[in-house]
Amino acid sequence: MKQPLSLALCQIKVTPDKEKNIQNALKFIAKAAAANADIAILPEIFNGPYDSKIFPQYAEEYPGPSTEKLARAAKQNRIAVVAGSVIEKVNSHLYNSSFVFDHQGELLARHRKIHLFDVDMPGRIYFKESLTLSAGSDITLFEYKNIKFGLMVCYDCRFPELARILAMEGAQVIIMPGNFNLTSGPLFWELMLRTRAVDNQVYMVGVSAARNEKPAYQSWGHSMVTDPWGRVLVEGDEKEIMLLSTIDIAETARAREEMPLLKHRRIDLYKLDY
Amino acid sequence: MKQPLSLALCQIKVTPDKEKNIQNALKFIAKAAAANADIAILPEIFNGPYDSKIFPQYAEEYPGPSTEKLARAAKQNRIAVVAGSVIEKVNSHLYNSSFVFDHQGELLARHRKIHLFDVDMPGRIYFKESLTLSAGSDITLFEYKNIKFGLMVCYDCRFPELARILAMEGAQVIIMPGNFNLTSGPLFWELMLRTRAVDNQVYMVGVSAARNEKPAYQSWGHSMVTDPWGRVLVEGDEKEIMLLSTIDIAETARAREEMPLLKHRRIDLYKLDY
Repeated sequence: MKQPLSLALCQIKVTPDKEKNIQNALKFIAKAAAANADIAILPEIFNGPYDSKIFPQYAEEYPGPSTEKLARAAKQNRIAVVAGSVIEKVNSHLYNSSFVFDHQGELLARHRKIHLFDVDMPGRIYFKESLTLSAGSDITLFEYKNIKFGLMVCYDCRFPELARILAMEGAQVIIMPGNFNLTSGPLFWELMLRTRAVDNQVYMVGVSAARNEKPAYQSWGHSMVTDPWGRVLVEGDEKEIMLLSTIDIAETARAREEMPLLKHRRIDLYKLDY
Repeated sequence: MKQPLSLALCQIKVTPDKEKNIQNALKFIAKAAAANADIAILPEIFNGPYDSKIFPQYAEEYPGPSTEKLARAAKQNRIAVVAGSVIEKVNSHLYNSSFVFDHQGELLARHRKIHLFDVDMPGRIYFKESLTLSAGSDITLFEYKNIKFGLMVCYDCRFPELARILAMEGAQVIIMPGNFNLTSGPLFWELMLRTRAVDNQVYMVGVSAARNEKPAYQSWGHSMVTDPWGRVLVEGDEKEIMLLSTIDIAETARAREEMPLLKHRRIDLYKLDY
């Protein structure tokens, strides 16, 4: 096991031009590899605007143009890639899916966003993913370089139940391509990343798109890594940037030993079925 | 239903003198009533130092000297009182118990801390509640002025499962007498209060003791109310103070309508039994 682990958070600016977005992602992957990162992580829907109505135009089956290029870039650059997310077409269904490739370009994992973002905050933000998307129904973990990773997409992080399951299944790092907006970003982005880290004594890695002032949906940015104590290790602003973060995986075990939260759970008293 | 609801967070300074602490609490209750608060809230273990070894010396049965005086003060001042917590003796067991009295001095609820604080952070904090205390085994809610309250004590808030259950059982406000220290305070106090509020779209009310520089265990203070969006409405520093906070209960319903987190849970996928 190579220790420590180096992560490249690729906060790229997404445009309506799908091929341009893919090429930009490839450039960032090469840059991450050149910086000796172990994993390059892209944002949610890195290949097109975050907009339910136009998701179908950007959808592709797996393997498809986006994922094939990303897998090839992973192999060529010998770096693992969390391919943010793409709109995945499966028969008549569309999913918001995150694909993970190892440094040989082999598929390691696929997470289909399980909590769809349907909110209606008058005068602030209206968004209805379920207009065009279906929800996934699998909890997703993968192992790479002897480290166990959990994977979630954006709104999935709003539910403490999911991060908890990932931690109990062994995740030491939870990766979340996300895309908060100018309402939810300042209120919740850092709070969610820090808390899921603290509650579950894991590293949390949130990767957002950079802000693009043109589309209706403007990304918050602020890609971030938080350690198991909830301390922010790196944070971007709203601009396009690659952030590097080197994390010490042993810190998760240390936190759990000093403050055994996961052992102190009272499962004899908890219930879920409301 | 009187709207809005006014809360008095009584961040009192606790000394080794039990009777002096009780008298101080009574003074704060009178002050809260004079300020027209609906509920006066005391900190965890308001009648003695927070120290496992000496808990037995401060223990009392219910009803006992502390709780009787508090109940009487509630009635005399016509104000509900969340009596922080006391060490409750039940046969050979001791519990860290929070008693709640209505404005007629009638017992509304009793919560026995269900998660005991056993941590060992070398060079920072060592504490072992289970040395002398037993853990409670009941989830606690109560209703007052047509508002539903959840009740937890300190370390209970570190477990997202509990706040979630309280919310699903209908809590609109969760009250937490607590006593974080100079290690856990800056790392976790505000984070926990804001996140439990945001995740469950409730008001969170954390009431700490003021800092007393003398004992080994120094309280973080910073008593706080956060709204269902995680915004801090009031916050103390480390000194003795009564904080007043007026909250609009309708905001919980508004938050849940605009961003239906509690409805978006995927209980078909969650599990607890790890």
